[in-house]
Amino acid sequence: MSNPIPGACAGVLLAVQSVAGAALPAKITPRCEQAAPGGWKTTLGTPEGLTLLRAAAVPPKVEGLRGMPAAPFPLDRNEVEGRLLRGKVALRFPLALDEEVFGLGVDFKSMRRTGSAFQLHVDHWGGRTGRTHAPVPFYISTKGYGVLIDSARYVSLNVGVSVRLAAKQKPPVVDRTTGDKKWSSMPRSDSLELLVPAEGVEVFVFAGPTPMDAVRRYNLYGGGGALPPKWGLGFMTRTPTAYSAQDALNEVLEFRKRGIPLDMLGLEPGWHDHAYPCSFEWDKGRFPDPAGFLADLQKQNVRANLWFNPYVSPTAPLYRDLLPYAGSHLVWNGIVPDYSMPAARKVFSDHLREKVVGLNPVALGGFKIDEVDGYDHWLWPDLAVFPSGHDAEQLRQTYGVLIQKLLVDLYREQNRRTLGQVRGTNGGTSSFPFVIYNDNYAFDEYITAVGNSAFAGVLWSPEVRGGEGEDMLRRTQAVCFSPLALFNGWATSTKLWSHPEVADPIRDAIRLRTRLLPYWYTTFAQYHYHGTPVVRPMPLLAGFDARGMQESGRLDATANPYAVGRAVEVKDQYMIGDALLVAPIAPGSKTRKVLLPAGKWFDFYTGRLVGESQTLEVTPPLSQTPVFVKDGGLVPMIGERQWAPGPDEVLALEVRHYGERPGTIALYDDDGETFDYEKGEHSWTRLEVARDGTGVWNGTVTPDPKGKPWRYSDVKWTFMTSQ
Amino acid sequence: MSNPIPGACAGVLLAVQSVAGAALPAKITPRCEQAAPGGWKTTLGTPEGLTLLRAAAVPPKVEGLRGMPAAPFPLDRNEVEGRLLRGKVALRFPLALDEEVFGLGVDFKSMRRTGSAFQLHVDHWGGRTGRTHAPVPFYISTKGYGVLIDSARYVSLNVGVSVRLAAKQKPPVVDRTTGDKKWSSMPRSDSLELLVPAEGVEVFVFAGPTPMDAVRRYNLYGGGGALPPKWGLGFMTRTPTAYSAQDALNEVLEFRKRGIPLDMLGLEPGWHDHAYPCSFEWDKGRFPDPAGFLADLQKQNVRANLWFNPYVSPTAPLYRDLLPYAGSHLVWNGIVPDYSMPAARKVFSDHLREKVVGLNPVALGGFKIDEVDGYDHWLWPDLAVFPSGHDAEQLRQTYGVLIQKLLVDLYREQNRRTLGQVRGTNGGTSSFPFVIYNDNYAFDEYITAVGNSAFAGVLWSPEVRGGEGEDMLRRTQAVCFSPLALFNGWATSTKLWSHPEVADPIRDAIRLRTRLLPYWYTTFAQYHYHGTPVVRPMPLLAGFDARGMQESGRLDATANPYAVGRAVEVKDQYMIGDALLVAPIAPGSKTRKVLLPAGKWFDFYTGRLVGESQTLEVTPPLSQTPVFVKDGGLVPMIGERQWAPGPDEVLALEVRHYGERPGTIALYDDDGETFDYEKGEHSWTRLEVARDGTGVWNGTVTPDPKGKPWRYSDVKWTFMTSQ
Repeated sequence: MSNPIPGACAGVLLAVQSVAGAALPAKITPRCEQAAPGGWKTTLGTPEGLTLLRAAAVPPKVEGLRGMPAAPFPLDRNEVEGRLLRGKVALRFPLALDEEVFGLGVDFKSMRRTGSAFQLHVDHWGGRTGRTHAPVPFYISTKGYGVLIDSARYVSLNVGVSVRLAAKQKPPVVDRTTGDKKWSSMPRSDSLELLVPAEGVEVFVFAGPTPMDAVRRYNLYGGGGALPPKWGLGFMTRTPTAYSAQDALNEVLEFRKRGIPLDMLGLEPGWHDHAYPCSFEWDKGRFPDPAGFLADLQKQNVRANLWFNPYVSPTAPLYRDLLPYAGSHLVWNGIVPDYSMPAARKVFSDHLREKVVGLNPVALGGFKIDEVDGYDHWLWPDLAVFPSGHDAEQLRQTYGVLIQKLLVDLYREQNRRTLGQVRGTNGGTSSFPFVIYNDNYAFDEYITAVGNSAFAGVLWSPEVRGGEGEDMLRRTQAVCFSPLALFNGWATSTKLWSHPEVADPIRDAIRLRTRLLPYWYTTFAQYHYHGTPVVRPMPLLAGFDARGMQESGRLDATANPYAVGRAVEVKDQYMIGDALLVAPIAPGSKTRKVLLPAGKWFDFYTGRLVGESQTLEVTPPLSQTPVFVKDGGLVPMIGERQWAPGPDEVLALEVRHYGERPGTIALYDDDGETFDYEKGEHSWTRLEVARDGTGVWNGTVTPDPKGKPWRYSDVKWTFMTSQ
Repeated sequence: MSNPIPGACAGVLLAVQSVAGAALPAKITPRCEQAAPGGWKTTLGTPEGLTLLRAAAVPPKVEGLRGMPAAPFPLDRNEVEGRLLRGKVALRFPLALDEEVFGLGVDFKSMRRTGSAFQLHVDHWGGRTGRTHAPVPFYISTKGYGVLIDSARYVSLNVGVSVRLAAKQKPPVVDRTTGDKKWSSMPRSDSLELLVPAEGVEVFVFAGPTPMDAVRRYNLYGGGGALPPKWGLGFMTRTPTAYSAQDALNEVLEFRKRGIPLDMLGLEPGWHDHAYPCSFEWDKGRFPDPAGFLADLQKQNVRANLWFNPYVSPTAPLYRDLLPYAGSHLVWNGIVPDYSMPAARKVFSDHLREKVVGLNPVALGGFKIDEVDGYDHWLWPDLAVFPSGHDAEQLRQTYGVLIQKLLVDLYREQNRRTLGQVRGTNGGTSSFPFVIYNDNYAFDEYITAVGNSAFAGVLWSPEVRGGEGEDMLRRTQAVCFSPLALFNGWATSTKLWSHPEVADPIRDAIRLRTRLLPYWYTTFAQYHYHGTPVVRPMPLLAGFDARGMQESGRLDATANPYAVGRAVEVKDQYMIGDALLVAPIAPGSKTRKVLLPAGKWFDFYTGRLVGESQTLEVTPPLSQTPVFVKDGGLVPMIGERQWAPGPDEVLALEVRHYGERPGTIALYDDDGETFDYEKGEHSWTRLEVARDGTGVWNGTVTPDPKGKPWRYSDVKWTFMTSQ
């Protein structure tokens, strides 16, 4: 890692102070440097060899960062404290009493972090504890900055709780017996404090000025957001676990027959000849001719996505080659290769290239990396040892990152983009084209996670896994407005068409998803090039007061003995891209509330004005997810089709305009499959709608001055509101 | 603290082995010694200055230990491994595949520990995570031994999960796709592995031969179980938080008027002139004359129990004196004194002696130590520092222990026994006369904890906190068959007599509790002198197969994607003492199942045979808790009274005999209030029932050969079964 830049500390970094009280921990002298425009890095103690950013090993997206405005260091450096405690690093950041914090990973219960303590730990989801599939140690403040703790350790944080004796701003001291109404079970502290159980750590501070800008800088520092292939934005179905090649192909044909778009076919454990632990060898019975099978898929314009968990079966040829790199403990009787070692990565990567991806890098589009998250009683214990010398905790926090990196590198060397799924990830992975999922099935928690993922620089998608008709429909509608639209039929005989009463609207939800491809693709390009999240939760939107409301609690000796209050959050709606506000309907609900931010909002389906700056009660038809377009919003769409367009296809484009104001969008395009866009093979075409001199709406197309081709023709302008 | 005894290691202690695989952690050489008959201590690395046993600082009960049989070291020393990992100690103990483990603190969900991972952490309850009010790092095996990890750290354990690559006994490797029925989501390991995040630790191994013997040795090593004063076995009521002295006295008089026994009156936060944080000063408005108030209580034969949390208010005179010992963080705006420092303990102890206990050490019977458990977002963070140099983690794990110790010492110097409540404790506290409680109100979890406490060498009691009539009745019945019988009315206006339809059976449940005083007191004496738990969960009973049954799981993509099976436990019934099997009825239930262990069992109320070695469906009247007496059981009782007998009272004794077999009991007695029993002022009187030559039942009393007086007369024998 780079040496400190002499002099760069002067204006920026962490001050080290001694702590009040008799105990005086060792002072530490941070080394610091400006890491990027509006981004600062400080080094405390001796950082470790395996951290999140080192595991991801992605260079910053320099052009994107240069495109951000200059900004001063966003914190009062006199208010930041660091110290070493018994081989750990303790840090204190100031937190104003009216400041709210988001992030710290993909929580499924809430977005607000202030008022809680966390220990970040890769795991299944564990509501508000810090245990989650993506416990990213990055937080964003409503004051417009972000902080990343680049550590592969279980970082503990207290966010606005635990008042210091030395605090300048102390909460009022209230006698609970007589002042019960004013008394608080959690007096608000003026700090965010954290403990990194390591001898050293690098900490990054990202400036704003807005919270969205801080998120963008974080994503760009991590390489820019993922840019999936176009087919990754279509629809995926996952087949039952023991399906054969013929079963799987029949499933594809059934989609084609029914006119349900399909781009990705997920094969579950049964493609291995041994699973849990895995062999990474095609099962000769179910898949006698893998290359032929992949060729059949390619003919159908469908990409295979292969499930695995990374624990290698003693029955597999791969086992022998990976055994020298195995950790001390097994998972489901399989060895746990130490993928922090380049030699181990090479063994696995070579195997996948030779036996799997190399068979057909076009049709074999990606992988689903399962079981890299938790629970503690399934994965290796913290006392496990690994041959690299990295310890169990570091491997736990980075295992999903290391495997994603391995696959990213494998596809890059083929010059093919991939889009996969992963169940455990961490910081520094914004650029990895993997979408997180889990076994949870609580709709509200799913939706919370869709939004929360934006604070963590990751992508998250709910799933449809069967169920009754209306339930499946509502879930399908929700996944179609999430980063990855999929049906996961691994353990059900139910199909998307099993319930005739909802078969049509399910198909239509998927068709709408694919019709919106230009909009989705541009939104992902914004993520990649500008760091702007695909899904934008309410607290990242300008004009939305993220601090929310606070309901006070009511004393109840049994149910609420501390009269704990509750923060009101708007976590069940979010924007996708610049124009669309999505408010998914939960299964079983006919109606819901939608909070419209400032400005006028228009119904996506009709173009009609629905309101502004207000809370709306909506009762959509069963066939619709409530979607609202901001005033002046442009939504580029294509016609109905069954799979994503190839690099040589030229499509007719419909551009819908909503509202009363003029609108503009820079529509992104490239070949949709390779990394040639990095060599300049891409375009940003300016679409603009304004009234002409007579007050009539007019649309204009301004090609990218760099002159790269775009793949649309016959632009049709639809003025949804003012037709 | 003792030095290793040369040569003592030879036959006993932990072997250190290197670990399979490429990573080779530093070997450690344990120092070891025989700590007691059937108890061994090994020292790994450099133990810390503050541990659980060092915080409790109770000498072992040597006579009790000497009374236990000699026993060989219960483990195969070649199968025990220890190593140092990056400043932590890792240990592996063998665990046979048919071996079951209990303990590791008071869990509220389950008793069986095998098949889970834990991190022991003082906290509110957190089902099966290791977070609990009493996360005692002691476990008991069905093979008849126990292991104590004497560490004030967050110890992590994997019990029978996480198979080692080097394991000799590996579970079968099953392909999940085709062998789903045989596949297990948690392959059973042959180990219990644990990680102590400290440079060193002392580990104690206690032999059996039975699991009960191992528990007894643990309790005796910790000083023997608590022996409360007799009045501590009566009934406690806690008054609403802002009650005045007069309100409280009126409450006592109401109990007397209604003939509901009462021994203890709990005063909640309102006795302080500032609470949350606390002042430890009597409120002049509500308690203008504390000494007079205590004298009034004494006249009513009632003892006060004073609530506090230990966080000292800046408004209090005590604050100034304790400030030099304060940790870096506040709790509810109060300082957290570092009670690992003798000087801090002295300040607090002096204050309590002068201002509180010293006013009337007879009437001021004890304290309720609140809020020493958790949550993380309420207490100090792990990065807090304390003036002793002990760290936040150590203080968190021992805070309740240190305060109990302070109070134990304070009462001992007055030669008065105490009985208190505490909400956070840990290992080494068997001898402390404090009963754990919490804010939970789930009846089944309460009952599970009553039994589970026995594995942890602690006492736990459910609470009654109001509610509807039948709910209050069932809860009252349950607390009356738990270590502490109390109504906690701190935040309700409901009284025990508020529901006329259940007022009589509530009163009768409490009366029965007090009538059983001789039985309870003898049971506690067994705990104190012999280490035998007061409450005896089923797995500690001879002839009960603690391994239980295993129900296999059924795959469900949404509800149970790993087809996780379920262990069937009998955790809703337990024995109290030698004779009584108690099966509490949950509120809302009219009927329940009872598992009768081997031997015949008789109804407590009627003496009738109910069955043997079978599962029974019982439907008791609303007025009764199902209680069963083992064949030959003797139950000594006294007549109805309103408070516990004083040291000079002589009472009529009724001894009930149940069943068809002869019976015997050593009935314990002493003055019930002081520590004079330690000077020999106590007696074990032998009561015996047998048939005479003509087949007629006869009872005989054999006085203690040491000739100490006992306080009973007019022994009446009641042959419940064979009258």
